[in-house]
Formats: sequence, C-alpha cells, structure tokens
Amino acid sequence: MQFLVRIDTARAYELPPDERAELIARERTRGRELMDHGVLRDIWRVPGRRANVGIWDVPDADALEQALESLPARPYAEIDVTPLATHPLTAEANPG
Amino acid sequence: MQFLVRIDTARAYELPPDERAELIARERTRGRELMDHGVLRDIWRVPGRRANVGIWDVPDADALEQALESLPARPYAEIDVTPLATHPLTAEANPG
Amino acid sequence: MQFLVRIDTARAYELPPDERAELIARERTRGRELMDHGVLRDIWRVPGRRANVGIWDVPDADALEQALESLPARPYAEIDVTPLATHPLTAEANPG
Amino acid sequence: MQFLVRIDTARAYELPPDERAELIARERTRGRELMDHGVLRDIWRVPGRRANVGIWDVPDADALEQALESLPARPYAEIDVTPLATHPLTAEANPG
Amino acid sequence: MQFLVRIDTARAYELPPDERAELIARERTRGRELMDHGVLRDIWRVPGRRANVGIWDVPDADALEQALESLPARPYAEIDVTPLATHPLTAEANPG
Amino acid sequence: MQFLVRIDTARAYELPPDERAELIARERTRGRELMDHGVLRDIWRVPGRRANVGIWDVPDADALEQALESLPARPYAEIDVTPLATHPLTAEANPG
Amino acid sequence: MQFLVRIDTARAYELPPDERAELIARERTRGRELMDHGVLRDIWRVPGRRANVGIWDVPDADALEQALESLPARPYAEIDVTPLATHPLTAEANPG
Amino acid sequence: MQFLVRIDTARAYELPPDERAELIARERTRGRELMDHGVLRDIWRVPGRRANVGIWDVPDADALEQALESLPARPYAEIDVTPLATHPLTAEANPG
Amino acid sequence: MQFLVRIDTARAYELPPDERAELIARERTRGRELMDHGVLRDIWRVPGRRANVGIWDVPDADALEQALESLPARPYAEIDVTPLATHPLTAEANPG
Amino acid sequence: MQFLVRIDTARAYELPPDERAELIARERTRGRELMDHGVLRDIWRVPGRRANVGIWDVPDADALEQALESLPARPYAEIDVTPLATHPLTAEANPG
Repeated sequence: MQFLVRIDTARAYELPPDERAELIARERTRGRELMDHGVLRDIWRVPGRRANVGIWDVPDADALEQALESLPARPYAEIDVTPLATHPLTAEANPG
Repeated sequence: MQFLVRIDTARAYELPPDERAELIARERTRGRELMDHGVLRDIWRVPGRRANVGIWDVPDADALEQALESLPARPYAEIDVTPLATHPLTAEANPG
Repeated sequence: MQFLVRIDTARAYELPPDERAELIARERTRGRELMDHGVLRDIWRVPGRRANVGIWDVPDADALEQALESLPARPYAEIDVTPLATHPLTAEANPG
Repeated sequence: MQFLVRIDTARAYELPPDERAELIARERTRGRELMDHGVLRDIWRVPGRRANVGIWDVPDADALEQALESLPARPYAEIDVTPLATHPLTAEANPG
Repeated sequence: MQFLVRIDTARAYELPPDERAELIARERTRGRELMDHGVLRDIWRVPGRRANVGIWDVPDADALEQALESLPARPYAEIDVTPLATHPLTAEANPG
Repeated sequence: MQFLVRIDTARAYELPPDERAELIARERTRGRELMDHGVLRDIWRVPGRRANVGIWDVPDADALEQALESLPARPYAEIDVTPLATHPLTAEANPG
Repeated sequence: MQFLVRIDTARAYELPPDERAELIARERTRGRELMDHGVLRDIWRVPGRRANVGIWDVPDADALEQALESLPARPYAEIDVTPLATHPLTAEANPG
Repeated sequence: MQFLVRIDTARAYELPPDERAELIARERTRGRELMDHGVLRDIWRVPGRRANVGIWDVPDADALEQALESLPARPYAEIDVTPLATHPLTAEANPG
Repeated sequence: MQFLVRIDTARAYELPPDERAELIARERTRGRELMDHGVLRDIWRVPGRRANVGIWDVPDADALEQALESLPARPYAEIDVTPLATHPLTAEANPG
Repeated sequence: MQFLVRIDTARAYELPPDERAELIARERTRGRELMDHGVLRDIWRVPGRRANVGIWDVPDADALEQALESLPARPYAEIDVTPLATHPLTAEANPG
C-alpha cells in the first residue's frame, strides 16, 4: 500500500550546527537504506520549507509507523500522512 | 488495516423528503451488509451533525475506496479518512 | 456514553530520554488499568503523529475529565473530545 | 450532563418570507417546550449572526441528538456541540 | 449585558507544581468572589482541555476587561469573548 | 459601548442589477439615519471586498442586534462583531 | 521540473449521470495521453475524496498551466500545486 | 503606493461558454488599459487556479477600489489585497 | 489614507514585571505622541486579549511601517493591517 | 520561471540586538547580490510584519531552493512559495 508522506523537520534547525550536521548525515544514511528496501519509493524537497514529500510503499499503517520511527530526525519531525489508492490510469498502465 | 472514517452527508438533506427517505433506507441496508462482512466494525452518530464516525477494517486503501464507493449516499458525502496503526496497549491485550 | 478522544503527546518528546521512557511506562500502566475497567474501549496510533485515537466509555463528561486527568502524560497532552451518539445500525445490531 | 450548543440557521433565511415566518413560529413553540422540560436551560442570540448559543441539559449524547432532531429548523441548521464538565466552583456552590 | 467567555489556561501548567497549585488556589478564591458578585453567572470545564467556559454578566466591555484582568491566572490565559444578545425565548420567559 | 462590526454583503451582488441598485439605495438611506443617530460612528470600505468595517456605538448587544436587523441588506450579510473596551490612551485624552 | 498536483473534482459529481460518465471517459483518455508524453508521471486516488494526487513533470509553470487547462474536467476542478525540488537522496541515486 | 492583489475569478467559469468568452475579452481589454496607465504594473497567472496575482500601483486605497470596481469580472471575483511598503533594498537601488 | 491596525502584544507579558511596566509606560508615551500628531486617530482594547484595535491615518504604507516600527512594544507585537477605503456614506457626510 | 516568495523572519527578532543587526547587514548584502544577478527581481515589505514579499526569477525549483538557502536569515525564516505562470496580458505586452 502507498502513502504520501510530508515530513517537516524545521525544529531540527534549532540544534547547534554540529549536532544538526551529524543528525542530517544519519538521516541521509537511513533514507538510503529505506530507498534500497523499496520502502521510500520517491522523495522531493519542498522549496522554501525544511520539509520533504515522499511516496512510501509499505504493507500497512503499522509498517509505515515503524519505518517513520526509524528516522533519526523523527523527534524533530511534524509528519502528515495521506493514504493513497490505485488510480484507474495506473491500473490500466500496469495490469496484473 | 483499520481506518477512522468520518462521513458527512449534510448535502443529502437538500433532497426532497421522499427521495431522501429512500436513499437513507438503501444506505442502511448497505451499512448492515458492510457490518456483517466485518468491513464496518463500529459506527457512531456525531450529535448535531449529519455525520457518522466509524472504524473500517479493510486490507488497504483500494479496498476502502471500493467500500466507500458502494455507499448509496456516496455522491452526497464529504469523507475524511485517517489511517490507524496498532497501539501497543492493543497489541499486548491481543497478542498473536 | 462514548467519546472519540484524540490525545497528542508531542510535547512529552521534548523531555530527556530517561524521563520520557519512565513517563511512557507509567502511561502504559495506567492505560492498561483504564482498558481493564472498560473505560478505554479501543485505542489506535495515528501513524506519523505522537498521537492516539481512542473510544472512551464513561457515564458523562465529568467522568471523562477525571479519567483523562489520571493520565501521567496529561500535562504534556493536547486533547480533542468528540461526544458520540448511538448509530441506528449499532442500535439494530445490539437491541435492548 | 450539559452541552454548550451553537445553532446557526443562516440557511433558513434563504426561504421565501412566509415559509420562513411559519418555520420560526414552529421553532419558537418547540423551543418553549424544551425550556419547559428543562432540556434547554439557557439561550442567547449571537449579535450579527443568525445563530444562537444555548446550554442544553440532557442525560447523554443520544438524548441531545433526539432533542436537536426535534427542532423544526434542524434541516437548515449547522450545529456545534461542546460537552461540558462540572467546574469545581460550581460543585462548591451547589454541593450534594 | 452578558458574554460567553472561554478561558484557556494551558500555559499555567508549565509552572512548577507548587507555584501552579498556589496560582489555582488564588484563582479559585477570585472566582468565588466574582460568582458572589453575580459577575460570573455560570462556569463549566471543557473536558480534555485546560479551559473553562462561562457566562459573565457585566455592564459593558470595559467592566468585562477589568473583571478578566483581576484573575490571577490572567497572564497565562488565552481568552475568547463572544457578546450575547437576549433571545426572544428568554425575553418571553422573563418579561419585564 | 462600542463594537467593531465588519459586514460582508457579497451575496447581495447575486441579485438582478435593478433589485440590487434599489437595495443599495435603501441601505444607504438607513445608513445615513444610523449615522445621524450616532449609532454608526465611523464606516469604511474594505478595498477589493464587498464589505465595510464600522464603529457602532450602542448601549449593549441587544441594541446592536436591533440596529443590524434594521439594515435592508441584512438577509444578504455575513457579519462579524468584536466588542471594544476603552483604551487607556483614549480615557486620558477624554477624561470625565 | 516536477510538481505535486492535487485535483479535486467533487463538483463534476453534480452533473447528470450520463454527462458525468462521458466527461470521465474523456478525462481518462486525456490522462492516458499525458502519461504517454511523460507529463503525468504518477497518479493516485485519495480514498474517500473525489480527488487525485499526481506527480507532473513539465518544463515550468506555463507548461503546467497548459497541461491542466487541457483536462476536460478542468471547469469542475479545484487544483492545488506544490513545486518540488530535487532531494539529495534522489540526486545521489540518479547522478548525472 | 503599491498593493499585491490576488483576484480569483472561479465563479465566472459557471457562466455559459459564450457569455464567459465575452466577459474575458472585456476583462482583457480593461486590463490592457490599466497596464497602459501604469496602474497594473505586473500580473501573473497562478497555475491550477482561476486566479491572477498582480502588483497594482495607485495613490491610495480609494483609487485601488475604483480600479478594481472597473473590472468587468468584478461581480465574479474574490479579491485579496495586501498593502506593500518599500523595502530598503529597493530604496537603495532606486534612490531619490 | 487610513488603516485598521490590530496589535497583539501578548508576548510582552512574558517579560519580568518591572521590565514590562517600563515598556508599557514608554509605549503609552509614544502612543500619546502618535495621537497628538493625528497618526493614531482612534484606539480601543479588545476585551480578554492583550490586543488593541486602532484607526491609523498616514500618507501610505511606508509611513505606516515607520509609525509601527517606532512603537517600543514592536519587537513583541503581532500586527494585522487592513487598508481602508472611503465609504460613500462618509464621503457624503464630509463632502470636499 | 518566476515565483512569488513571502519570507517571514519574525524569529530573527528574538536574537540579541547586536547579533540581529549583524545578521540583517549580511542579509542585506546577499539581497543586493541576488538583485544584481536578476534572481530577486522585486521585493517589498509587508507593513506591520517582519516579512517581505518578492518576485524571484530562477530556472526552476532547485535553483530557487539554492537561492533561498543562501540567505543568512534562512534558519530564522518561514517561507511560502507560489509558482507563477505567464499571464496573457504580459505575453501580449512582451511578445517574443
């Protein structure tokens, strides 16, 4: 099942610079793992905001919650989750 | 997977009385079926609003979309969907 | 009478880790008690949010206020309360 | 149990004048009955708005829903319901 | 003239426990005085919120401002004020 | 007592042109009367909006409600009312 | 450049059934063309809403405006557009 | 003095096609005049919305109100006006 | 040109009492000057809020910005500005 | 491509005065550079707010994100970005 997930990490920018840099590095590493596992399918930056928008592909909400909890920046994040259903156009383009 | 679904059908109350009564009867019948199939697990009325709040239990968002589309009152409904993850308290109370 | 109660405890995550862990443990214990007494009938996690959604079953608003005040995390919680009325479908399914 | 109920009937003012006058008369009659039965304990007009604010005293949300459904203007009304718990000051002033 | 006044004192709960207890005691004393003088006519707790809703009876907005300023918890309070006009039902029930 | 009153009459602009012109003329006449009686103390247009902002000077909310009800455009108006208390600067400038 | 575009077509559901069916068919055809041209890269349904969320890939806002204007359902659509910037994770995964 | 003005004309799209085309043509003509007179200094389309954003340069709010009232699409427009003050960077770049 | 300006200074109330008293005194002095210069034409308190509402009379937005910047409480203030256009009723009452 | 960008830097005003002055100076310098490079095409102050509104001219969202990240005040800024499409009036006035 897929979710549109918006993650706003503005609060992480109140950390001292070195702590923040270290957190971003760990967050980047974890992000790569999630992409490699096909959990984080797509991700973009929202210009002007300390936020990203991504398409997460997980079995269900429990799996999504675990994946989000695994993010190092989780304690500083405001997260909005929108469940996504298959659109007929996509079903047609990828039958079976 | 479970969803908290709020369905507001205020617009159905702009129908002529007999059309509305007939629609509500069909909606009630469909609701019973969904409850019998365990899709609609719980449902309450929101006092003062032409709205109900329910717990829907379906495999994923596609299944939820189909179930909601099957509601006779769907064309008159404003629907809010919140995906729900298992809470540790519930996991403990119903292990396995 | 039943209430839909959403409890957001994001502020508790600004506590030092050990204090937070201790608070969550006490909160979990109290939650179990409330479930055992049938006050907290159902509870879910909202994925991406430090929040839960639950169905609370109490005689009236005074009893609900007392139950909520008994939560160790109360001082850090933002709480939304929606009173719930019985839906005809439920009344039919559980006559008498 | 008491509820703070705000009822906005702006849509009723889109009715033809005579229909509206007749509706207001029936609404006034029903209001008197609800006050006589102690259900509608207090009511005020919100200046500038086609809305009233009232204190409703009923056993629970089901009883409130029935009382609100009995209002002739119900089909034209937007209703907000806030459950009220006893305040310590009031408990002190009216012990027992 | 009457006002519907909602007072949210969530910020007071960020005070150290003893300071808070002392503030609540002074607030309770002042509340009693305002009730005795007929200024604070009715007051309820909003379940789940550090907030109360009350009916204040004062000559005008200046008098209301003074009464609110006299509350010990004023510095920690977010206050919403709605002016109330007499409803025809109340005028009828209390002619003259 | 004084109130800041914002009146939005956008809906009146859905009337046929001649009906609208006649309504505006009656509204202007009534407005002059209210200004002559010192009820409507000041009024401005909000650029870009079919709305005006005014300072109304009346004994209380009941009087304000009556004055607003007397406006020919009342059925088409969305009205926001903010009660105003005397500012110390004004009290100083106009002692007694 | 990519945009996150949410298109809500609830108003199209106020059309008579046959007109609506014909419109949806034309919309589906146009959607397929946009996908074939790589303009509409991804699209999902928002469960419970007459809305879709999609990733549009166009040179700039002018091109996006043209693509959206070409949708048969455009006159009935409420559209929200969020510009998207490349995320470092994606830049790493697709260097060059 | 300059204003940022957002004009949303979605309601004009509920007109029959020929009426709408005629209105847009008149609106375009009036827009050209306002640009020629330096009143409408800059204008853009908001992609996905029936809305434009523009910089209007007029002596004051009265002049702005007149200019906006002169737009043929005014009866169908929702308009937001933000007054603009000179920024130090602009003052530096255009001294005197 | 006139502006309706709402100034909320709640944050100033987080200052230590003596600092706050000194700030309010300086603010009061500056306010008197602005009234004497006809810039601040009218001002009221919003009951229940640390906010005032005023009518400011200045040549344009630049002059307004300077006047607001001159307020000692500016760093603690949230300010909303609404430009005001002359209303026909006022134009009639003060021709020329 | 052009963007309407609103930058609110209220949080920078919580810095000690000298730090703030130094930040504003660096921000001013960087702003001049961006104007000289034609990235920042126009900028105004929003009276009463610690905010500016500007027209930014960049190839795409990635370039906009880089330009915004280069602002010294970025860590204290809340930024809203609206993509802008060419308006027919502008296209006519500047053909080719």
